[in-house]
Amino acid sequence: MQALFLENNQLTYRDNIPKPSQRNDEALVRVHIAGICSTDLELIKGYYPYTGILGHEFVGEIVETTEAPERIGERVVGEINVACGACNSCLRGQITHCERRTVLGIVNRDGAFAEYLRLPLKNLITVPASISDELAVFTEPLAAALEIQEQITIRPTDSVLVVGAGRLGQLIAQTLVLTGCYLQVVARYDKQRQLLAARQIAWIDEKAVRKRAYDIVIEATGSVGGFTLARHAVRPRGTIVLKSTFKGNLSVNFSALVVDEITLVGSRCGPFAPALRLLENRLIDPISLVDGRFPFDKALEAFEHVQQPGALKVLLFF
Amino acid sequence: MQALFLENNQLTYRDNIPKPSQRNDEALVRVHIAGICSTDLELIKGYYPYTGILGHEFVGEIVETTEAPERIGERVVGEINVACGACNSCLRGQITHCERRTVLGIVNRDGAFAEYLRLPLKNLITVPASISDELAVFTEPLAAALEIQEQITIRPTDSVLVVGAGRLGQLIAQTLVLTGCYLQVVARYDKQRQLLAARQIAWIDEKAVRKRAYDIVIEATGSVGGFTLARHAVRPRGTIVLKSTFKGNLSVNFSALVVDEITLVGSRCGPFAPALRLLENRLIDPISLVDGRFPFDKALEAFEHVQQPGALKVLLFF
Repeated sequence: MQALFLENNQLTYRDNIPKPSQRNDEALVRVHIAGICSTDLELIKGYYPYTGILGHEFVGEIVETTEAPERIGERVVGEINVACGACNSCLRGQITHCERRTVLGIVNRDGAFAEYLRLPLKNLITVPASISDELAVFTEPLAAALEIQEQITIRPTDSVLVVGAGRLGQLIAQTLVLTGCYLQVVARYDKQRQLLAARQIAWIDEKAVRKRAYDIVIEATGSVGGFTLARHAVRPRGTIVLKSTFKGNLSVNFSALVVDEITLVGSRCGPFAPALRLLENRLIDPISLVDGRFPFDKALEAFEHVQQPGALKVLLFF
Repeated sequence: MQALFLENNQLTYRDNIPKPSQRNDEALVRVHIAGICSTDLELIKGYYPYTGILGHEFVGEIVETTEAPERIGERVVGEINVACGACNSCLRGQITHCERRTVLGIVNRDGAFAEYLRLPLKNLITVPASISDELAVFTEPLAAALEIQEQITIRPTDSVLVVGAGRLGQLIAQTLVLTGCYLQVVARYDKQRQLLAARQIAWIDEKAVRKRAYDIVIEATGSVGGFTLARHAVRPRGTIVLKSTFKGNLSVNFSALVVDEITLVGSRCGPFAPALRLLENRLIDPISLVDGRFPFDKALEAFEHVQQPGALKVLLFF
């Protein structure tokens, strides 16, 4: 089958990768569309050592399963964390933190940039008929955006700043505006600004960010500069949510965090069911974020395209 | 009057400092006892530039006030943050974060290592008769310990680790054990361990700390090693409370905070009223933490004593 394989920080297109064989506890899924995420780009840069098929955002259909043959043909998205069910994190119900997890296209498990992938049946969530494939492929990043509200309370009276208006920043902004909070988004590129304006979401230039003013700041750039801006923008006793992974360490003045009593919250994968509900209700519009559509055999071109400054979501079609 | 003066990282005992004059909006307090805190030691090291009389933990009595002469003679402790009452933090009720604050013995305001100090009358809180001076001098650090529970919820079922069993760590442990939580305290010195054991609080050696196991970790050492230990001990999705200030920056792997969805909470000054209630109810026993009592003219010896490894609370008496 065709797939994008990552090895030694080198991504290659291959058309001779063996199709995974269906296993008793896992179903085989034929991928319809896969999306490129910043984490994929960070993995290529080596933020975390991974060798295998890349990709974790997808929509597809179940083609083989012995466990529940009645689900064959079902259109699905997939929870990317495959959990053991027995460790302390799993027993607490926090399966995304399973200590023995594999993660689709990220940790010890071949990913979604391939004609076929394998996931446990319980990880595969049915996509309602009213949600198109192109909407459904946004379920995973939208769930990641919703994870913020799984972790912290956003009050309607809160003043919230999102730093970064890229792929994830836009989805975060679309979820936060639904809370009624006072929302501003730091956007650098015209296209990002236009997308926000089209949804009546206020964008601002980074120079216009008020110092020590926001109750909550979401860092969605994954850069040192983004964190520095977030730190300046948050008010004393406020909260910074760290929504991006990036390679390397950050040097932080911890005493200043103590004096200002700042809360930092790391935030990663989120819940799929509410993401699908918001897509079904048309409360989120991710289609406007699609910046490029590539047939899978042009996937390497897609990766060049997505790395242009200000690029948004790039989708790979089978 | 006698006072300890800090200038250019040099602490000097002086007996020729002019007694502060009482002002309309501020009362004059004669200090009975003052306590030495790690923040004083950090200020001497230069963690924050400060010139003036050091010291912020005290109990004393009001000797002059025109605003409320009926309070003259009252025994008091003092909220150390003097707020403007008009900035955004003050209007939110977070006076310890006043953007224009002065702080007793820390920021632009002469402190408590002196025969007399000056504070606004509203900062001076009456000490109930049943609380001795030696108990009352612990009100400020005990309030700082209670600030943790102002900021985060400690559930009776939580597993909590306190890293550090010094002056502040001991008070924190004494407040946390009241919640019924599963509590362990990393203690390095025999004396620290004996004090904990005497209150049926479990101490452990740092080598015995379980990795990725605690729901909540309180970092009370103010050292890079303490933070590193806290980071290893906290479970995924757990919380680290940073309770100490120290000079310099810390290099942190932020991606790991994101992947593990860790929450970091900076924590500083706390509420005096509940601290006095716990002292009055004898639910906290700070007297056992007193490690040295010095007459004020031997204050520089007291500072040498308090810097011995494992030293606890050192008090200065007038």
